[in-house]
Amino acid sequence: MPTYRAPVKDMMYLLHDVLNITKYSNLRGFEEATPELTEAILREAGKLAEEVLQPLNRIGDIEGCTRNDDGSVTTPTGFKEAYKIFVEGGWQGLSHNPEYGGQGLPSVMYIAFEEMCVSANLAFHMYPSLTSGAIVMLNLAGSDEQKAAYIPKMITGEWAGTMNLTEAHCGTDLGQLRTKAEPQDDGSYKITGTKIFISSGEHDLSENIIHFVLARLPDAPQGIKGLSLFLVPKYLINADGSIGARNAVSCGALEEKMGIHGNATAVLNYDGATGWLVGKANEGIKPMFLMMNSARIGVGVQGLGLSEVAYQNAANYARERRQGRAITGAKDPDHAADLIIVHPDVRRMLLEVRAFNEGARAFAFWAALQGDLWLRSEDEETSRQAAEMVGLLTPVIKGVLTDKGFENANTALQVLGGHGYIAESGMEQFVRDARIAQIYEGTNGIQALDLVGRKLPRNNGAAIRAFFEQLGGFCKDHRSAEAAPYINPLKAAIKDLETATLWLMENGMKNPDNAAAGATNYMHLLGLVAIGYMWAQMALKSLELLAAGAEDKTFHEHKLGTANYYMSHMLPETASHLKRIEAGAETMMAMPAEAF
Amino acid sequence: MPTYRAPVKDMMYLLHDVLNITKYSNLRGFEEATPELTEAILREAGKLAEEVLQPLNRIGDIEGCTRNDDGSVTTPTGFKEAYKIFVEGGWQGLSHNPEYGGQGLPSVMYIAFEEMCVSANLAFHMYPSLTSGAIVMLNLAGSDEQKAAYIPKMITGEWAGTMNLTEAHCGTDLGQLRTKAEPQDDGSYKITGTKIFISSGEHDLSENIIHFVLARLPDAPQGIKGLSLFLVPKYLINADGSIGARNAVSCGALEEKMGIHGNATAVLNYDGATGWLVGKANEGIKPMFLMMNSARIGVGVQGLGLSEVAYQNAANYARERRQGRAITGAKDPDHAADLIIVHPDVRRMLLEVRAFNEGARAFAFWAALQGDLWLRSEDEETSRQAAEMVGLLTPVIKGVLTDKGFENANTALQVLGGHGYIAESGMEQFVRDARIAQIYEGTNGIQALDLVGRKLPRNNGAAIRAFFEQLGGFCKDHRSAEAAPYINPLKAAIKDLETATLWLMENGMKNPDNAAAGATNYMHLLGLVAIGYMWAQMALKSLELLAAGAEDKTFHEHKLGTANYYMSHMLPETASHLKRIEAGAETMMAMPAEAF
Repeated sequence: MPTYRAPVKDMMYLLHDVLNITKYSNLRGFEEATPELTEAILREAGKLAEEVLQPLNRIGDIEGCTRNDDGSVTTPTGFKEAYKIFVEGGWQGLSHNPEYGGQGLPSVMYIAFEEMCVSANLAFHMYPSLTSGAIVMLNLAGSDEQKAAYIPKMITGEWAGTMNLTEAHCGTDLGQLRTKAEPQDDGSYKITGTKIFISSGEHDLSENIIHFVLARLPDAPQGIKGLSLFLVPKYLINADGSIGARNAVSCGALEEKMGIHGNATAVLNYDGATGWLVGKANEGIKPMFLMMNSARIGVGVQGLGLSEVAYQNAANYARERRQGRAITGAKDPDHAADLIIVHPDVRRMLLEVRAFNEGARAFAFWAALQGDLWLRSEDEETSRQAAEMVGLLTPVIKGVLTDKGFENANTALQVLGGHGYIAESGMEQFVRDARIAQIYEGTNGIQALDLVGRKLPRNNGAAIRAFFEQLGGFCKDHRSAEAAPYINPLKAAIKDLETATLWLMENGMKNPDNAAAGATNYMHLLGLVAIGYMWAQMALKSLELLAAGAEDKTFHEHKLGTANYYMSHMLPETASHLKRIEAGAETMMAMPAEAF
Repeated sequence: MPTYRAPVKDMMYLLHDVLNITKYSNLRGFEEATPELTEAILREAGKLAEEVLQPLNRIGDIEGCTRNDDGSVTTPTGFKEAYKIFVEGGWQGLSHNPEYGGQGLPSVMYIAFEEMCVSANLAFHMYPSLTSGAIVMLNLAGSDEQKAAYIPKMITGEWAGTMNLTEAHCGTDLGQLRTKAEPQDDGSYKITGTKIFISSGEHDLSENIIHFVLARLPDAPQGIKGLSLFLVPKYLINADGSIGARNAVSCGALEEKMGIHGNATAVLNYDGATGWLVGKANEGIKPMFLMMNSARIGVGVQGLGLSEVAYQNAANYARERRQGRAITGAKDPDHAADLIIVHPDVRRMLLEVRAFNEGARAFAFWAALQGDLWLRSEDEETSRQAAEMVGLLTPVIKGVLTDKGFENANTALQVLGGHGYIAESGMEQFVRDARIAQIYEGTNGIQALDLVGRKLPRNNGAAIRAFFEQLGGFCKDHRSAEAAPYINPLKAAIKDLETATLWLMENGMKNPDNAAAGATNYMHLLGLVAIGYMWAQMALKSLELLAAGAEDKTFHEHKLGTANYYMSHMLPETASHLKRIEAGAETMMAMPAEAF
């Protein structure tokens, strides 16, 4: 049976040693983010993840959700009780608006919490995380009345939330959506249509579910500029705030999926359901995109979270399983065989995953902190710069952390050999669960196009130029011999990224297919550099702390050991991505469609 | 619902245009391998795969196998009927010894057949393919009496076969096996122990199952040199050849696995079961290794087969699904959106898979042909050289084709977006089924070690030197300007492989960990070069046939288009593997075991 230990120590190191978040104590919510308080929160969160959520992960996979004949949905055994503990602990409101009952903590804290929940139980985590997205969106786009009426109940978890975008004939291409909204005399709308792939779409955890639905008004223009956003509760709300009549939205079916069985992926039928417009008519796409952008960092962290728990279980196995002898001679001659951790190829697999995880965690925390600076800094220039950076990094975090997260879960499975293929080990569930994160919230191909087609050229490349400036400054600031093993490989990688950026700009102008053809490789190249930047920062910080006589010497020595692996084995992969980008679109576009 | 079309045309092109197998008509079994006969066989095989096996693939996944209270196992609905059609069609004997009822066709034909079966239904295919392995082994190591008593019934499919190696405490490290064999007065042995992960271990398809079991005699030396091979039938055979009493071997449980649900992965309990020694005492490992080596090419083809069927379904989807607009402007303005095949990133995904599949198919066929030359050529030198080549290439085919096969099945799934994650599409089953091939028949890490630790240094590197000579000769023979786009990238890749080989020899001598640390990357580097060699041959052959006014012009044009993609986007990946090899073992081995 798989186990999980929340990486509180590594998170504390990132928050306080590397990112030094206490220096932002002048920002809203940060005043409470002292080392003492953050550690207390992370420890409590870790207990929730380890003791409440993780033990339900396998049973959620085995049982899945059940749609009953009346259209209601029963979640797996134990999910209801866990949800009660979750919301009563106040976790649903962790980073939300204190005005409505939230705790207003920085999103860098929320991201840490989210990683733990994902590692413990992704399918469960998706219920509160969809609610969280709904809160963010309503906070962005709702009227004051709507906010006051809905957000407090969502923060207490009494009501949950969902996002309704996809229809059967179109996923990414929202301009093709057909669901209709007809205005009624009382100011409400009748919503009619069918939405598919609705995560957490129907369940028995909360007394109500607030659906946010993209639909089209009768006179709406075609395409995405004709989409409006509607709030459609499962149960209508009476004037006194109590639960009223059942609304005309129902779960038509649940999907049979590869993984995340514990989450109900619903087909939702809207049969003239009553809804209310959120924000302006025909401007529904904007808050939806804003919400999705913030959700994408969370989805990236799903890749990381599964990679982390898969690593832990593979490492546990490798430290206990005996097979064969070390190639340099028996290490434990008293035993019939050595531990498999003595084999270089086993270490290669573990280090690939671990060096990614620790670097990606730093990357996600850093990006989340930029998000906090954007939304919470009162200095306009700081806020503007942070917004640019978040925009640039979000598709990279979503795409790279989920692609690598899936790959890593598989690598970790491989460490267990045949035992990893058996359901009981839990490893294959991590793989199946991780697979969805590469798809939802915009496929990773879409992330790459967003990066190359939108985020790179915006404001004449301001964001990527700022990124290069920051990296260049960092390298200049660290010219000691001690820093060289980290700065030199980073410099080489930055050069590859610069070359690729110039190539895309030049050749993408000649033919946009060249930019699109290289997009996925560019996203991974940028990810390698960003994580390399994080590793260089961590290595220098650990060197500094060791020199200062840090208490936990081994922690910092292992940090350096892992940094060394990243620098020698993983970061040089930038060259390969550059080559693929420079190979261009020609051979991809040459064959006619019917040749495939 | 997924579909499958057997790639008969591509296989005919490989057999007759590229490999020109008719030139071996002097070899046993090849006399019948005329274009007419091979096409007839491949068409019949394709029909079997498409019409009998493929329709059962999903149901096999959904139902799985059931162990009944009496220890018997029921296979999924339809498997029994399909098995009847399979064996009555004579497919079980395709490449086996005609002396015992087989058709003795070349294994290059068997490999083609095997690819189709895997694409259609891997879980089903594993039943006859385990029998096939058992036939090969008995043919290698059994006495004439044993062969005559068992092989004919196995070729008709009346009796099936299995391989029993793994025990719970050891997978790869067979030296730790504990199952015991006690000699009896009548010349038989009593076998006692528990074997796990036994594919096709118990089922209702055949009237008997012949288990081949590694066990230890009372006085056997420790380690793998104390293992003997035993033949243990599920039902004992009477003197007249009829089925006798039930033997003391029983299925204790079936494993719950990630995929291949239609195949029964059994725990087999041997409780003093009656068995017979095959070959000499304490020399059981040798025939087992010989059989496994031949089975490993088959397992490689499992990766290819799943990659192929996944490709076909992804390509079908991409040619029908409409989402968004081409980045260079609408291609189908009359429709609400363009086909997704217009998007470069979709083509990138499809071409990665397709260029691999066609190249890997050529690689597997070529290796199988070397196997035929080894075992069937009467010229000693030809046979010896072919044996060296098969030895070198086998771990590469197993490791690379299954690693890439799994990766490709995932890439193909991604083309379908959310729909690929839904079970009904069949894509996620391909992924789950493909995952096992990286593990069984020796994990891919073991393949890489076999390559670097055994196959490379053997006979002072004779095999790799012969490989380089052949490649060098090929490049020298093709110096035309027309050939340059294929020869030049191939030369660069060969150079990377040469550099890596030298590095491993030099640095592996200093410290064996350096060789082991780079093994997996070396295996993939060699795979890229070997497949690049195949692509260069195919491209030159198609150019030649086009110049000669070949009938099927588009086939050859698409072959060249795919070759161009491989050369520009995939083959240059050799540089990245070289870099990783050169990074060495140091950073991998530095951290203590407890750091993980």
